Order: sequence, then C-alpha cells, then structure tokens
Amino acid sequence: MEVLHADEIFKEFKEHSIAEFFKKNRQMLGYSSPVRSLVTVVHEYVTNSLDACEEAGILPEITVTITKLDENAFRVGVEDNGPGIPKAYVGKSLATILAGTKFHRYMQQRGQQGIGAAGCTLFSQITTGKPIKVVSYTGKGKSFICEVSIDTVRNKPIVSNTSESETAGDGKRGLYIEGDFADVKYENSDHGVYEYLKRTALSNPHTQIKLVDPEGKETVFLRSIDTIPERPKPTKPHPLGLSTNDILDFAHASQSRKISSFLIETFARTSQNKVNDLRNIAKGVDFDKDPKSMAWAEAEELVKAIKETQWIAPDASYIIPIGKEQIEKALKNILAPDFMSVTKRKPQVFRGGVPFVVEAAVAFGGGAGKKTAEGYEGNVLRFANKVPLLFDSGSCAITEAVKDIDWKRYKIDIENQPVSVLVNVSSVYIPYSGVGKEAIAQEDEIIDEIKLGVMEAARGVQRYISERTSANIDKSKYRTIMRYANQLAKDLSGLTGIDEKEIRGDLEKLVTKHYPKALDKEEQEEPEGKGKAETGDEGVQ
Amino acid sequence: MEVLHADEIFKEFKEHSIAEFFKKNRQMLGYSSPVRSLVTVVHEYVTNSLDACEEAGILPEITVTITKLDENAFRVGVEDNGPGIPKAYVGKSLATILAGTKFHRYMQQRGQQGIGAAGCTLFSQITTGKPIKVVSYTGKGKSFICEVSIDTVRNKPIVSNTSESETAGDGKRGLYIEGDFADVKYENSDHGVYEYLKRTALSNPHTQIKLVDPEGKETVFLRSIDTIPERPKPTKPHPLGLSTNDILDFAHASQSRKISSFLIETFARTSQNKVNDLRNIAKGVDFDKDPKSMAWAEAEELVKAIKETQWIAPDASYIIPIGKEQIEKALKNILAPDFMSVTKRKPQVFRGGVPFVVEAAVAFGGGAGKKTAEGYEGNVLRFANKVPLLFDSGSCAITEAVKDIDWKRYKIDIENQPVSVLVNVSSVYIPYSGVGKEAIAQEDEIIDEIKLGVMEAARGVQRYISERTSANIDKSKYRTIMRYANQLAKDLSGLTGIDEKEIRGDLEKLVTKHYPKALDKEEQEEPEGKGKAETGDEGVQ
Repeated sequence: MEVLHADEIFKEFKEHSIAEFFKKNRQMLGYSSPVRSLVTVVHEYVTNSLDACEEAGILPEITVTITKLDENAFRVGVEDNGPGIPKAYVGKSLATILAGTKFHRYMQQRGQQGIGAAGCTLFSQITTGKPIKVVSYTGKGKSFICEVSIDTVRNKPIVSNTSESETAGDGKRGLYIEGDFADVKYENSDHGVYEYLKRTALSNPHTQIKLVDPEGKETVFLRSIDTIPERPKPTKPHPLGLSTNDILDFAHASQSRKISSFLIETFARTSQNKVNDLRNIAKGVDFDKDPKSMAWAEAEELVKAIKETQWIAPDASYIIPIGKEQIEKALKNILAPDFMSVTKRKPQVFRGGVPFVVEAAVAFGGGAGKKTAEGYEGNVLRFANKVPLLFDSGSCAITEAVKDIDWKRYKIDIENQPVSVLVNVSSVYIPYSGVGKEAIAQEDEIIDEIKLGVMEAARGVQRYISERTSANIDKSKYRTIMRYANQLAKDLSGLTGIDEKEIRGDLEKLVTKHYPKALDKEEQEEPEGKGKAETGDEGVQ
Repeated sequence: MEVLHADEIFKEFKEHSIAEFFKKNRQMLGYSSPVRSLVTVVHEYVTNSLDACEEAGILPEITVTITKLDENAFRVGVEDNGPGIPKAYVGKSLATILAGTKFHRYMQQRGQQGIGAAGCTLFSQITTGKPIKVVSYTGKGKSFICEVSIDTVRNKPIVSNTSESETAGDGKRGLYIEGDFADVKYENSDHGVYEYLKRTALSNPHTQIKLVDPEGKETVFLRSIDTIPERPKPTKPHPLGLSTNDILDFAHASQSRKISSFLIETFARTSQNKVNDLRNIAKGVDFDKDPKSMAWAEAEELVKAIKETQWIAPDASYIIPIGKEQIEKALKNILAPDFMSVTKRKPQVFRGGVPFVVEAAVAFGGGAGKKTAEGYEGNVLRFANKVPLLFDSGSCAITEAVKDIDWKRYKIDIENQPVSVLVNVSSVYIPYSGVGKEAIAQEDEIIDEIKLGVMEAARGVQRYISERTSANIDKSKYRTIMRYANQLAKDLSGLTGIDEKEIRGDLEKLVTKHYPKALDKEEQEEPEGKGKAETGDEGVQ
C-alpha cells in the first residue's frame, strides 16, 4: 500500500459551526428517543419561562399545549406571563447556539448554557423544516410577532414574517413560542411530559402550570404558595474557587487600574485588609500594576497566597433552594406519603469555592415509590436548581450518592418498599456531565454532601419504619400463634369439657399481652368488617 | 417586588465561542476527575495517531511518555510515525475546536468530531497556562516546530515560536506532541493510562505502543499482526438513512445540474433505474430541476418514495472491524483465558440506513474478569471503532445490552465468575451520547444487535462452563461423602475387624464410580503433592 502524504489528507480540512455539530449529534442535546425528545423541548421552554419570571419578579403562569400533527409529529406551544423578549433579541435568543443572558453570569438560574431554546429551533428545523413561531409582549402595549430559524453554517438567526401589533393591552407581558417537531412521541410514563411537569410543579410550588395534552385533556398543577421567590442575584466569585486561569481571565478583562483594586472589585469577601494579607504572602506580585499585564506566574502566586489566607465562607444568600416547608407541602400534595422527612443542608463548596446547597427528602408509603408487578420499588426524584432531571440517571451524582448509602442501617429496603428519595442541588454553577443537562457530574464534594442530606432524612423516617415494621412482625407472630391457639382451644375443650370459646378467649388475652402492636395495628388499619373477615380466614390458611 | 422590564434583563445578552463554553464546562470533554483527565489527553492523542496512520497506510508505532512535574501535574508526550501535519494546518488542527478532516466525511475513523486535540490544548492552557509543543515531520526532509494555544474568545489558534529544521531525514515522517497538564493524576487502576493503552493494543493488534510511565518504567505492547489494516474509504450515504433535512442539505450544496443526477452522484446504491423508480412514486418532484432549488416538501416526498422502494443493503465493505482472528489472538495474549468464544456479526443498520458491525467475545477463566476481595466478578470491555471506552459505562448501549442478557441461560454467573465480555461497535458514525465520546447512545437497533452478538459468544462458552461446573459439583460431593467414608471405614473396621484401609478403598471406588469427574478434575488440576496434602486434610475438616 502506498503511503499517503499529509498534504493529501489535509485537503479535507474544514471548520464547522457549533450548530452544524449539534445538527449531526442531536442526541447530545437530549434529542435521542422520541419520548425524550418531546420532553427536552418542553423542558427547555419551561425552564426559560421560569428563569425569566424569576428574574423579572413575576409569579409564573405557564400553559403547555401539545397537539398531535401526525403519527410521530407534535406541535408544542408554551405560553408564559414573563417579561417577554425585546424585538432586537428574539432571533439571537432563540436561534443562535451559545448566546444569551445566562452563560457568563454568576447567578443561580435553571439555564446556564445559552443552548436550550436554540437547540429546539434546530430540532424543529431538521425534523419538520419549519421555523419557530414567536409572539413577545414586553409590556409596552405592543406585541412583536415573528418566525425564527437558524443558518446552521454560520450559527446565525434568520428572522422572518415579522409584524408588530398594537392590540396588546398596555400591561400585557409574556412570551408565546410554538414549534412543530417530528421524531417525537407523547407518552404517559415516568419519562413523559406529564411527569416532567408534575415534578416541575413539585419543585416550584409558586408556579402554576397547565398542560393541554394531545387528547385535549387539561391538567392544572395549582400553585401551593403565593409568594414570588426572591430574585436571583448575580454574585462575585469567591477567591477560593478560582484557578490561576480564572484570575488571569478576570485580570485581562478588568477595567480596574491596579491589581489591588481589581481584586477588591472583582471577587467576593475581598477587602483592603485581605489584599494587604495577600501582599504579605505573594511577594512576587506587583499589586500596583495594571491587571491587564498580569502574567501566569503572578496569577499562580496569587492562587497560592489565597489558599494560605483565611477567608469568610462564600455568601450563600444568593442561592435560593426550594425550601423545607415548600418541599413538605409539595410532597404532601403530590405523593401524599404516610411519612416523610425533609432536610435542608447548610451551604457547602465544591472545586474550592463554588457554593451549593443540598435539599433532601425521604418519603415513605402512600403515593411514594413506584408500583411494580411484584409490589413496590424505591425511586429517586432528582432536581438541579429546581429543574427535574428525568434522564441519564446512571451518570448522575445524585444516583451515585443514593446508591452508596447503606439503607439497611435505616431499616429501609430501597429496592422493595414504597420509598421516594428527593434531592435538589442548587448552585450558581451546576457541573452538568453533558450538554443535555440531565445529570450532575460526579464531583466528590457534591456526592458526599448529597449522601449526608439523604442520610439525615432517612434517619427521620427510620423510627417510623421500625415501628411499622415491629408492628408488622407482632402482627405476623400473633397470627401464627393464634392459628395454633384455635386448635389448642378445641383440643383442650375436648379433654377438659370447658367451653372452647372461653379457653380461646383466655389464650387470646395471653398472646395479645405479648404482642400488643399486633392488635393495635389490626384495629387501626382495617375497617371492622374486613378485619374480622381476615381474622376469620386465619384458621384455614 | 417591582417587575423588571425585559430591556433591563437583556442588557446582559452576549454571544460565546465554543472554546469558552468548554473552558467553563471541561467535564463535558472528559476533564472531570484527575485520573480521567490524564486518560482523556492520552486517548485524544493516541486515537488521532491511529487514525492518521490508518489513513496514510502506515503500520503505527506510538510512544507515550508521562513525566511527573508536580504533585498533580504531568507532562504527556506522544510520538508517532504517522504522516505528520502540514505546516499550514498545525494551528487549526490542534487549537481550533470543531475543525479537522473528520467531522464531515462519511468514513470510519476513531475521531469524528474535530474537538479532541484542541480540547487538550485548552485543558493544558487553563491548568498550566502553557502552550502545546509540536514537531511535525511530513516526509519532505524538513521538520516544522512550533507551539500552539487557543484564543478562546474567538476560537482561533495562536501559533508561536515556530522554526523549521532541515535535519529530518528525507523519509522521516511523524508527529510529536507534548503538553503540560495540571489537575491530573497517574494511577495504575482499571481507569488509568496503562489500562487504556493495554486495551488499545488489544483492539488494534497491528499497533505497537510503548508507555514510559512517571517512574521511568517502559512497557511495550508488541503488535501481534504485521499487516497494515485496510485504509478507511469515504463512502456515500445510503438513501434509507436520510432524513428530509439531510436530502435538502445535500441538494443545496450540490454541484449537479439536475435532481436526478444529484441523487445518483450523491448517494450509495442509487442507479439510473432507481431514480426512474423514484420518479414513478414521487410525482410532485421535478427531477430535472436544479437541486439547489429543492423545497422541504419535495425532499419529504423523496424520503417517502425512498421508503417505498427496494434497496440493496448498505455496502459495509468500508467498515473495518477488528476481525475474529485478531480478537482471538489479542485475548490470548492479554487475558490468556481458559476458554473463549468470539463472534463477528453481519452488518446491520440503525436510524434507517447507517451501517454498523458488532463484534463480541466472551472469555472465561485465566486472566478474564476482575479479581475482588471475595473472588471474581465479570467485566465488560467496551470499544467503539476499536477505541477503548473506560468511562460513563452507565449510559452506554454496550452496558445496557450486557445487563439485559439472561446470563443464567448460559450457566454464567456474570457477577461472581471470572468472565470478560468484549464488544466492539464499528461504523462510519458512532452515535456517542456525549461530547466526551465515552458511551454509545442507547439506540434500540444497536442494543439489540450487541445482545445478539454477546449471546452468540455466550453460547460458545456455555458448554465449557457447564462441564466445568458439573465437575466442581462432583468434586464437592465426592469430598463431602469421603469425609463420612473415612469415619465409616474406621467404625466398620472396629465392628467387623476387617482392615480399615480395605474398607476405605472399597468405599472410595464406590463413590468414584458415581462422581467420576471429581477425581479427573482433582488429578488434572492439582500437582501430585498438593493434591495428596489436600485429600489428607479432608478428614479433619
């Protein structure tokens, strides 16, 4: 075989846009199976609506309408009462991959990539060839209507059929997005749109969500709380979370005149005193020079100095978890478990200085767990910044943490009992394992913290379960012994002539004294008639 | 709370480059844990070397040198004897994300994204601030030396410190890449560099790989086959694998004058006769017009017509799997199992028309499986286009398929026996689930085909295992009975006066007649002395 020269091979060299990349690898955005693809579309639009409402300070009302167009094609319409998108940004927001208001801000939001909505546009385009329809009301008395699609070669928006209408009332705000998608399927399963919205309602109890399904059936998930959640605040990065490269990037983009003022203005918890401390350690750094001229070695020295300095922990006040009471209310509403225990942990940091908060709940009985052919099995409800994660559970830190727990210690048989474990991780930066944002990367600090949270909640239900279990054991022993007691009473009556019922009564008293919970439970749980019938059945088993 | 206007929110709107995106989300490229990050670097460079050698028609010789720089920092150098990179392309190849010779070609290659090597440059840059050093010999008597880094804001290469040397011999070809990386760790585990290269050697038996580890220890994985594998051929897409959007894209980029000639020139298995067939079905399409003017509806009609037409299956001759003999040789070399069975399946298609080939092997005993504290457990060796996949096993189609198999049917206890299952999926397009390319997306057709392959191989080892198992059962029964026989001989001798040894001998004959395999096995497996000692021990157990 003749050897090919490199020039020959490199004739084929080309550069590609990110839009072309995802067009070819749409499964990386979550567009893999038809059921998942439909959920991904709903997920992207709903999270954007929730983020927008939260930032604007609005109590969200969202309507999701799914219409069947064809065997495997559906129209998805999502309407919200959020701030809308200004005319100048509609195209870029919805039809440019890696563009938006979220990627570069240190702020807790559901979206954080600037990919989601543009991904939907791309998916509609490659499966149906149609643009996305948009109506945007920004509260200035006008609505802006248009269609958007992506020029995938250049990753630029194409905005067409635009019109403005004066009809919108002066205060009318909101966004309506509608797209046609093929290669999708509507399914009422654990991984379908209904379940996704149910879980979204669970983790966002201030939100009202209406679903109109392909059969026209309307479901409203009513809000259980009327207060607008706090507006997420952008924050400054904590020094302990910075890499050498981070400091350099900030320095080179800084408008500050000196490195000293740059540090104070750019990072959290950094006072003049702290800068003086750093000055005393990082002798090789000229704190009076322009940060734009900072070199790698200087930034490296700063990172080392930061690690040797005492810092106040990152301020976690801008991390807004769901809230303990809200989780309790929501679980009651949606799962109505026999018992539950909810934990909100204190803020922790990962990668040195990125703060995050774990909330965990364990619910037992009632609607908890998952019904199977054989009985029950436990399930895990995963959330990141209040967004339900339905897919890729195998590679998620939450799954890993729950698997790692020695459930026997808490008398819980996670594989065969009606248990639901809920975990929500909140942070200004969630380290997702993939672009599809369905799994949290398995960072050790995050896994450890989730474990502690879930274990705390598990301890809370442990007592309840052991009581219930010991009652069950008592009940079963009582039944077994009473089976013999019946026979014994009969035999003794035959031998002694004493009335069988009398002997039976005495024996029953004796056994009941030993296993008090057996009868309590029996009386408590079962209605009179049924209880008797069951007892009656005992003898013939 | 005052409601924020959209204009206020959208002040923060920005666009970002793909390089900035991966800088912030490096875990998506495989740079998560320190051990995995080091493997990712080696993986990216080695797969590029193998692809380049294969395309040029060269028997690969690769040297990987890993040097410790600091507690968590290592230098990685990879040298190959491939075609090198022409001067004009060094920067773009190694420091532009989404650029290369592979992304847009329908050709079986290990890399297919144009992300890997640039990802390494980015990772070096953000962890050590250093550029990547490159020496490229393209066989023209000169070597080109330079350093490359990425301008992340623009996703463009920065090439510096360039020099050309005349010293390279006229025929000298190859590429040397060297980078410094921090946040990495060298580990001799199942997920380390050594294991990665061992598995690469296993699936590329024509390759010679040398590893110089941080302690200076050299390991050479010698090639077991001396033939250069076939050069991968670019192919045309099969009509059955095309979506409406695919056809439109091809049509709009086409140089053909008519739709009819466009179809014949662009797609596989498409003759003039086939076009005539399509003409008869797709009445709404004008086959004589310029393909550049094709509309969605026309492309849609073509897709429907294609589905109604009979097609010869995709030509899989350009898919080059490892090969049955090669797998056998490699498994013998590396695992030396007691028994194995290897299967190469016929080509299949997924997503309608993308052809792929599954190879599967099950190896039992010897070095197969994984040793644990309690004994053994089965393991799965996953490969895609001959590249070992060490991470993200939870979300991989191969894992899913192996898990789905009812192993009991094959008398294999995959959880407690020394079993290795090897699967290699080859295709011109592997649908990876993430940018890090460590898992194959769970497409139904692929999972089904892997299952069939593994089941076929499992049947091959089944007979061997049941023989071995029944021998083990015999052995254990024999031992148990002989324990009583010893005592019985003693007692009978006491009662009857007959010599104890005589009775014992008779009993032994009797038992051996019933469990013949017990003794066979005993004699076969254990050396004379050890066997006797063990038998001697039996009585006192």
